[in-house]
Amino acid sequence: MAHPLDAALVLDPLGDGRFRGRTSPDYWNMVGPYGGITAALCQRAVLDDPRHLGEPLALTVNFAAAIAEGEFTIALDFVRSGRTTQHVAIRLLQPDPKSPGHEAVVIQAMAVMGVRRDVWGKTLATRPSAPPPDHLARREPRAGIRWLERFDSRYPTSLMTPPEPDAVVVDWVRDDPPRPLDYPALASLADSFFPAIYPLIGKRVPIATVSMNTYFHASAAALAAVGSDYLLGATRSQVFEGGFFDCESQLWHGDRLLATTQQLVWYRDA
Amino acid sequence: MAHPLDAALVLDPLGDGRFRGRTSPDYWNMVGPYGGITAALCQRAVLDDPRHLGEPLALTVNFAAAIAEGEFTIALDFVRSGRTTQHVAIRLLQPDPKSPGHEAVVIQAMAVMGVRRDVWGKTLATRPSAPPPDHLARREPRAGIRWLERFDSRYPTSLMTPPEPDAVVVDWVRDDPPRPLDYPALASLADSFFPAIYPLIGKRVPIATVSMNTYFHASAAALAAVGSDYLLGATRSQVFEGGFFDCESQLWHGDRLLATTQQLVWYRDA
Repeated sequence: MAHPLDAALVLDPLGDGRFRGRTSPDYWNMVGPYGGITAALCQRAVLDDPRHLGEPLALTVNFAAAIAEGEFTIALDFVRSGRTTQHVAIRLLQPDPKSPGHEAVVIQAMAVMGVRRDVWGKTLATRPSAPPPDHLARREPRAGIRWLERFDSRYPTSLMTPPEPDAVVVDWVRDDPPRPLDYPALASLADSFFPAIYPLIGKRVPIATVSMNTYFHASAAALAAVGSDYLLGATRSQVFEGGFFDCESQLWHGDRLLATTQQLVWYRDA
Repeated sequence: MAHPLDAALVLDPLGDGRFRGRTSPDYWNMVGPYGGITAALCQRAVLDDPRHLGEPLALTVNFAAAIAEGEFTIALDFVRSGRTTQHVAIRLLQPDPKSPGHEAVVIQAMAVMGVRRDVWGKTLATRPSAPPPDHLARREPRAGIRWLERFDSRYPTSLMTPPEPDAVVVDWVRDDPPRPLDYPALASLADSFFPAIYPLIGKRVPIATVSMNTYFHASAAALAAVGSDYLLGATRSQVFEGGFFDCESQLWHGDRLLATTQQLVWYRDA
């Protein structure tokens, strides 16, 4: 039986850079799919297209509307390819309820692919520390929120304690069931962080990701070497203003910073 | 006489979401325009289009190829508009030297526009401290790099000292000549930071921004209230790997975090 992530990422090629997919009940959130699975689908489509160059470098996913349960189309446009980098426009489309027979853009995304080279490198960020994952309790999934069952997240701190200024919240996280790491899985894990707004406001308010940006800092070989180990995550939000907040996160394995990711998230305060 | 930024951002409407612009010698870098001016142009085009909703929230600019000196077209696609947010696809086009009579995509970008609401807010990031700008020397522009003349940047630290792990480099910065702040100016300022790779490698190596992502956290009224004051910038890079590094920055005015911004940058090590 396929892993739930692999089952959710099945894309049938329709030719001409178009793919047919369908939403997965395993990654359902409250009114649509978990955002990370949508990011993973965008990256999967680019990797499934034989025209792709090299490895993922950057993925920006803008959530224009809620994805409805059922089928969707992902349409790729290979906008520009150079020797070192390649730029792809990605749209996820579903039938437009307001205009029968037409499709509407639900997700707008861009991927940058590229060729990594064997050059000088350095990690300036310091990996945060955390007790080993087997010393920590797994975050309890909430009834009815299926995607939370798909991640084994272990936080050393109380999630409902409001973060101090500049505080970084750390966790261990991996797919459940465990699954070898690759770029789509990393794009999905990058959205798994607990939002700081809940403890700050003191309850679960409605939130929705508007835009998610992920930079990949590791080669496919480096991701494969991770296997299905836990990653160490670190996240912070800087500002909540006017109904939108940001969130910046890291995903580490050992001393290697695999990905950095940012979000802009819509929120209500009640 | 128009401010150099305003002169660089003149866009002639061609109808149907298309605008004609031209590169500005005032913001020229070594082999193309300063990246921040390209980001500002993308934001300017959206704001110039009467179909835009609310205020800028997020702007992602992917640099697909070098912009040639001369005219260009910016083409907007208003992909989806809701009550709260609006998603715009942006392409900057120039004649394709490989295919006479056709245009090639040089820049691919996405903007999220939205309506800010009067809700609970909080700033969790702490503003870094710095001596007042009039106690600091202005960064010397380098001969032949015109865009550096367009920013009055004042760093309290030596730029060629390699940053320690996790270190944040602070500066004061404003347009030169001073100019009232607005979203295009903020998008431009977000690219003005000194790259940490120069002191780390010990010399100026070739670099080129691949992708730039900016989140705007302030209303138009809040930006207008800044006037032409200095902003306080803070920047750090987390990882240099495989020929690409990241960079995360903040732009503050007083206690207000106006923008957070990230880049992925191509580099050579020699």
